[in-house]
Amino acid sequence: MQFYNTKKPQKAYAERTALRIITLGGTEKVTKNLTVYEYGEDIIIVDCGIGFPDIFDMPGVDVLIPDFTYLIENRHKIKGLFITHGHEDHVGAVPNLLLELPDIQVYASKLVGEFLKVKLNDGALKELGKNFHYHLMDPTTGTVDLGKFKVSAFRMNHSIPETMGFAIRSPEGLILHISDYKFDATPVLDKPADVSSIERYGKEGVLCLLSDCLGITSEGHTKSESTLNDTFIKLFDRAGKKQIFVTTMSSNISRMYQIMNAAQKLGRKLVASGRSVEQMVDVARRLGYLPFPDDFFIKEQECQKYDQGELVYLIAGCYGQSGSSLSRLSRGEHESITLEKDAIVIFSGDPNPPGADIMVEKVMDALTLKGANVIYGEIQENLHVSGHAVKGDIEKLTKMVNAKYFIPIGGSITKMRAYTNVLNFIGIAKDRVFECLEGDSVNFLFNKATKGDHVQTKPIYMGSNKLEELNPVVVRDRNQLCSEGVFVVAIPVSRKNQPMLDRVEIITRGFIYVKDSQDLMNKSKKFIGKRLGKLNSGKQNITNIKKKLENEIGNYLRKETSMQPMIIVHFITI
Amino acid sequence: MQFYNTKKPQKAYAERTALRIITLGGTEKVTKNLTVYEYGEDIIIVDCGIGFPDIFDMPGVDVLIPDFTYLIENRHKIKGLFITHGHEDHVGAVPNLLLELPDIQVYASKLVGEFLKVKLNDGALKELGKNFHYHLMDPTTGTVDLGKFKVSAFRMNHSIPETMGFAIRSPEGLILHISDYKFDATPVLDKPADVSSIERYGKEGVLCLLSDCLGITSEGHTKSESTLNDTFIKLFDRAGKKQIFVTTMSSNISRMYQIMNAAQKLGRKLVASGRSVEQMVDVARRLGYLPFPDDFFIKEQECQKYDQGELVYLIAGCYGQSGSSLSRLSRGEHESITLEKDAIVIFSGDPNPPGADIMVEKVMDALTLKGANVIYGEIQENLHVSGHAVKGDIEKLTKMVNAKYFIPIGGSITKMRAYTNVLNFIGIAKDRVFECLEGDSVNFLFNKATKGDHVQTKPIYMGSNKLEELNPVVVRDRNQLCSEGVFVVAIPVSRKNQPMLDRVEIITRGFIYVKDSQDLMNKSKKFIGKRLGKLNSGKQNITNIKKKLENEIGNYLRKETSMQPMIIVHFITI
Repeated sequence: MQFYNTKKPQKAYAERTALRIITLGGTEKVTKNLTVYEYGEDIIIVDCGIGFPDIFDMPGVDVLIPDFTYLIENRHKIKGLFITHGHEDHVGAVPNLLLELPDIQVYASKLVGEFLKVKLNDGALKELGKNFHYHLMDPTTGTVDLGKFKVSAFRMNHSIPETMGFAIRSPEGLILHISDYKFDATPVLDKPADVSSIERYGKEGVLCLLSDCLGITSEGHTKSESTLNDTFIKLFDRAGKKQIFVTTMSSNISRMYQIMNAAQKLGRKLVASGRSVEQMVDVARRLGYLPFPDDFFIKEQECQKYDQGELVYLIAGCYGQSGSSLSRLSRGEHESITLEKDAIVIFSGDPNPPGADIMVEKVMDALTLKGANVIYGEIQENLHVSGHAVKGDIEKLTKMVNAKYFIPIGGSITKMRAYTNVLNFIGIAKDRVFECLEGDSVNFLFNKATKGDHVQTKPIYMGSNKLEELNPVVVRDRNQLCSEGVFVVAIPVSRKNQPMLDRVEIITRGFIYVKDSQDLMNKSKKFIGKRLGKLNSGKQNITNIKKKLENEIGNYLRKETSMQPMIIVHFITI
Repeated sequence: MQFYNTKKPQKAYAERTALRIITLGGTEKVTKNLTVYEYGEDIIIVDCGIGFPDIFDMPGVDVLIPDFTYLIENRHKIKGLFITHGHEDHVGAVPNLLLELPDIQVYASKLVGEFLKVKLNDGALKELGKNFHYHLMDPTTGTVDLGKFKVSAFRMNHSIPETMGFAIRSPEGLILHISDYKFDATPVLDKPADVSSIERYGKEGVLCLLSDCLGITSEGHTKSESTLNDTFIKLFDRAGKKQIFVTTMSSNISRMYQIMNAAQKLGRKLVASGRSVEQMVDVARRLGYLPFPDDFFIKEQECQKYDQGELVYLIAGCYGQSGSSLSRLSRGEHESITLEKDAIVIFSGDPNPPGADIMVEKVMDALTLKGANVIYGEIQENLHVSGHAVKGDIEKLTKMVNAKYFIPIGGSITKMRAYTNVLNFIGIAKDRVFECLEGDSVNFLFNKATKGDHVQTKPIYMGSNKLEELNPVVVRDRNQLCSEGVFVVAIPVSRKNQPMLDRVEIITRGFIYVKDSQDLMNKSKKFIGKRLGKLNSGKQNITNIKKKLENEIGNYLRKETSMQPMIIVHFITI
């Protein structure tokens, strides 16, 4: 095995710098991908994506972004940010990073560059967009020298075109970074993954492979996108003159192409419905991915002017998102489109995304109830193929690269462990695999990897305005409000600084139904008056009284109702 | 085809009573099963189960129960309640029904009877328990005459022993009611489903079949519980002297038996952990289902006295429920059990229950992180078999029964539609299948079925105290509080009935972080003072001012923050 670094004379141990890889995101939770490569005074970053909130304990949180503290502290070292592909969990937090570090040089494919330009041309980000340092990284030929790093792209397949892996050369050796990927020998719009480059790197000697482990627990090999070729033609043909809707992930341009192709063959025109789908169709057309004539595309607002049998609706909302175009259609609340009684609605998205099953079923139920014929993965073959490598593919990549060390990325803790076990089964010792949590690091020195210092990170919540951080206290409070409501006790305080015991008011919501609970309200008022009188007589300061009283009211209500609303005691000086 | 009713002389049409079947629950949403059979002055009920809240818009709702209004209004007609099997979504709301109608006669298996007695011996229900009218219905021989109905039980298989179908004879004909079921030729503790009785009824002539449609979109036939026979023995054997945990649905007594059997064979003793598991083990042992010696069972509190290699923990929480014993263990918060570093944790539950995937992964991740070796369906075969018939089984039942009409139950709207389509494919016209929503009814008269009147129902929410109803207003308020918090404006009103504009106080939680938002708070106060002054000058009544002010503040805050907290304006008369 020949390593890149062996060509140079080696420094003495004490002087030599280690290569450090920090997984700031993209482990533990699949999304929010961000990996830092650091060597001395140089840092390069791979990916900068958003994460999705835990639906059970992050009410009102729209997305999560990586904690950029480490990058801000080391801003002088950052030489560039490389993006593997255009999914939001890999590129979605770039605007947030640019808000902190507007001078970062971004290296990405044409498609990703286009996405970013669209985002950075929107409202509050416009100023930032003017200063945007974008460099085209061609998936086949792109190579960049940045400080001690030399980064070369190679083509991979995924559920979006122009997906890349990166060969990252450092003085300590060659790293391959292959985030979300599959091998597709017959992709629909893209070219096949560049297996020969990977093999060549493998022969040269790879110090560490970072790669997607999400599909590790599924057996076999992931099917090609082109296996769906005939599906849409057959389904559209069978539909006769009925209204047709197809929903898929709005970033899957290859799927869109297949749907449009089938529509064209059957003499139908296409309506893109939903903001995300419309935007994607725009970008993809601009880049030449959807070479259909202009008059093939019908604006949503004009769809009612056409015979519905002449159209195919490509509609956003395949995960049942409640604000999506499809969800509004299912509830009869769509502003432009009317669902016909015998419409065909085809779900061509991931049939099993975490946490989405209930939402999807809700939308399917509502559509069925309105008379639509819903077609989905359980009752129809070949509606979807995954964009992720599965066990057989992962084993293939592992053997091809034959790295000295491995870091699984893009999966949960359970998936990382399964990855370690599968690799172990094919002969790779467990100490060659580093399962990294968010903020963990691995140091590479003299051809040997060791676990490095942990970089402290905290969750960063973003509300509906994706550019402004939500304070964790606000999220915690929402959680508490959510479960058993709020119980506010307003206590007027006289000018002589005396609480007016007979003027205490209770304001409560989400706790009990007040009209049915007059007895409890009266008893509570009495209790509060009594306790307040007692606490006040002790000449304690007001903050103390407030805290004690909140505690006592909480205990009292728990005893009376077995519930624990949020208690707020508030003094109002008159 | 010979129908029961043809033996009697037929009344003239005008005089004759229709048989009416009302699906008060158990359609649309799988759970909350309750079917009403009504003929003239007689009603019998089949099942009375709880439902589960929609995790996205029912915060603080623990369970749903059926709306009993129709039953209360027709209480004089009710002759009896029949329970098919012991799952909570079929029997869990019986205590709630008894609170309304304490004199209902309940017909159920020994196992279900035991469950109910345990429930009705608890706290607030004790009095009710004393008056509990329970009648043993033997799955093989049970037959009861009640008014115009004659009900005979026959044995079915499911994921709990003593599951029954009912043959319900009425003057209009014979109905088969087969809720959750599978055909298991080699069950573990139970006997095989009574196929010959079903065939006999089929030959006799069945007017309508009500049966479980949940599995309709899965191909093939459901495997026997006994196919798991060797799994646990192999896994326990492979574990050597390591600590072992197994989690499964706490009602699956057959699975428990297999786990205990394997434990005993490997010389280990059993610890039942978690309230639901402990209760079930108690009941099952009392009924002779778990014939292991007393000293085989070790109390959870004493588990630390044993070498951990001598025990198997049967632990509650296979769906990752956050309060469960397994979840607490995974967080290191269990009061009695300490997870050892190389423990084996086996998930032997449904791998894909709706909405549970995220919770399950969270628990698996936490266990893995603590060093446990987690074994689950994706990486280990034969850890679980379903309790529900799938497509091949449903086709088999359909052909055996050869009913004139069909009502799919226990599935969503989408599943009901798939059921109709599958039956249609094997030659049953669509107008012979009645897809019923909650409250829908079907009338049977002169051997013909027609859709009947709809019985109005509303959702009945129960909080953590499962016996007291939560007002829908409270649930709606929690939803609003949840998403963007609460903004309370307390306005003191002087003795002269004048609002004190300079004493307005704002109390807010879950909306913005107040310490970072002093500017917004000050501006809001000013805005409120100004608007209040204006509104007050118009001599409007206080309710009007309150409403208008709340509206205006809402608009103001939405403009300033793009958020919509719940706004409460409250006047405090001094």
